[in-house]
Amino acid sequence: MSFERLRERYNTLKKYSFEGYLSAELTDTLKDIYEISAGILYDLDSVELNSQIQGKEYFAFEKGGKKSRAIRHGLYKNDQKKISKFFRSMHGGFFAGIGSEELTSAVYTIAISFCACIDLFKIRDQKTPGTFFEIFIGSLFARRINKAPIKSLEILNLDMSTSLPTDFIFDLGANKIKFHVPVKTSTRERVIQVWAHQRVLDGVYGWGRFNGILIVMSETKTDSKNNSVIEICLPDQWRLYQMFISQMQRVYYLDLPDKYRKLNDVFPKIKVAPFGEFFHETDNLIK
Amino acid sequence: MSFERLRERYNTLKKYSFEGYLSAELTDTLKDIYEISAGILYDLDSVELNSQIQGKEYFAFEKGGKKSRAIRHGLYKNDQKKISKFFRSMHGGFFAGIGSEELTSAVYTIAISFCACIDLFKIRDQKTPGTFFEIFIGSLFARRINKAPIKSLEILNLDMSTSLPTDFIFDLGANKIKFHVPVKTSTRERVIQVWAHQRVLDGVYGWGRFNGILIVMSETKTDSKNNSVIEICLPDQWRLYQMFISQMQRVYYLDLPDKYRKLNDVFPKIKVAPFGEFFHETDNLIK
Repeated sequence: MSFERLRERYNTLKKYSFEGYLSAELTDTLKDIYEISAGILYDLDSVELNSQIQGKEYFAFEKGGKKSRAIRHGLYKNDQKKISKFFRSMHGGFFAGIGSEELTSAVYTIAISFCACIDLFKIRDQKTPGTFFEIFIGSLFARRINKAPIKSLEILNLDMSTSLPTDFIFDLGANKIKFHVPVKTSTRERVIQVWAHQRVLDGVYGWGRFNGILIVMSETKTDSKNNSVIEICLPDQWRLYQMFISQMQRVYYLDLPDKYRKLNDVFPKIKVAPFGEFFHETDNLIK
Repeated sequence: MSFERLRERYNTLKKYSFEGYLSAELTDTLKDIYEISAGILYDLDSVELNSQIQGKEYFAFEKGGKKSRAIRHGLYKNDQKKISKFFRSMHGGFFAGIGSEELTSAVYTIAISFCACIDLFKIRDQKTPGTFFEIFIGSLFARRINKAPIKSLEILNLDMSTSLPTDFIFDLGANKIKFHVPVKTSTRERVIQVWAHQRVLDGVYGWGRFNGILIVMSETKTDSKNNSVIEICLPDQWRLYQMFISQMQRVYYLDLPDKYRKLNDVFPKIKVAPFGEFFHETDNLIK
């Protein structure tokens, strides 16, 4: 019953996303989705997972023998008052009144609540959580900079004319920076695509026209046999991509792996940060 | 019963592939796998598919309501004599006695026979056909140039030392060309990875040290509801990758889509050909 309502709200969210990312209706639908998800999860049992990641503890919701993805203790905070405040800020596009840690936590809680419901009510569905996460993050980015994104670019190149499908592009207007914003629930071995798309944009439009900002939920993987949770990270490969393919301006995580945080301190310095920091440093990204 | 034997032979093939790609045992195991697959398929019904691709007709094998992937009429030739001749050539690494069309057809028939069996006997298993195809093509390439491949490269770059996992690398020795050979059953939207990996190699080792050669089975997709077969091709995106990421020397297909064949005639000219041609032009690739 609740799950049917969740599905209906999700389909409505997709519909609003086609119409634009800045509408009050889209934000309200995100809030509905969070509240229905939280209600579903409230009735479920949870199980502690065996975290192999230093300094992080995880649990999962359970239903009929199925387990949700790993959810991080301390980052997941089902605090109705704070979440309501977050959605009010989202409506206004003004996030200065909330600290960056609380922002990261609110976004994580909203995102992972819906994903956990899909994990438990559908079989092997990776697409729905991915699409939801993309719409949620895209609409947050749009609200923060007050610009709707586009998802493909026209290309004119001598004897060829085509359109390039892309991740989110936010165009701030003539002579201003544009943002190239890939959004992923996790990256694994596919992340090279992000640097490659950035390189195509640099090549087609000229270096420095697009700032690349990758936004990721987490890199956890749960072994269903023994309930252990690991993080899959390939920091040395990221360094090669940053040196030899293109340069991403920022990488933001909701649940930031320590191995990627350390990329702030080695060559080539890749700026990796919790997503909450985005809301407070946006003005610097635009410069 | 036959399928159990097929599984055992596949596991043996994987074992041999870890030990090296040039052994007589590996070639013999490939031949066993083909013969068992052909025996399984011989007993099955087939159904004509509704091809939406001009000039190409397809069918699928059927078992208990399940259908195999699309198999191209005319290219699939279950001709024991020709397949035996092909494996004798493979043992010697000498393919000059077989025409390029017959080579393409033999490789296609061997590859797709195994893949069709996996489609019918396992559920949603993409990994096994992919691994088999990679080993088969890798061992053919190795036989043709008489060099075993490696699958990772050491990287020393001032303050970093790591190993880069790659697709097949064939190193012909000091002051000779090296080949970077990604192998895929189909490419779709993931193909940008191929150009991106080539760019990392160009960046780390210097431009011109590695010749990139992509080898693909087909780009067909069957709609299970109405049995229609389409090809998913993104030629304009390939052109952007070839202009702005890196340059692949060749792309070979077993079932070559016409949209990619046309890339031979537009800028930037990407040389796309049926895989059989590889065996006769290898000497030119090395120059």
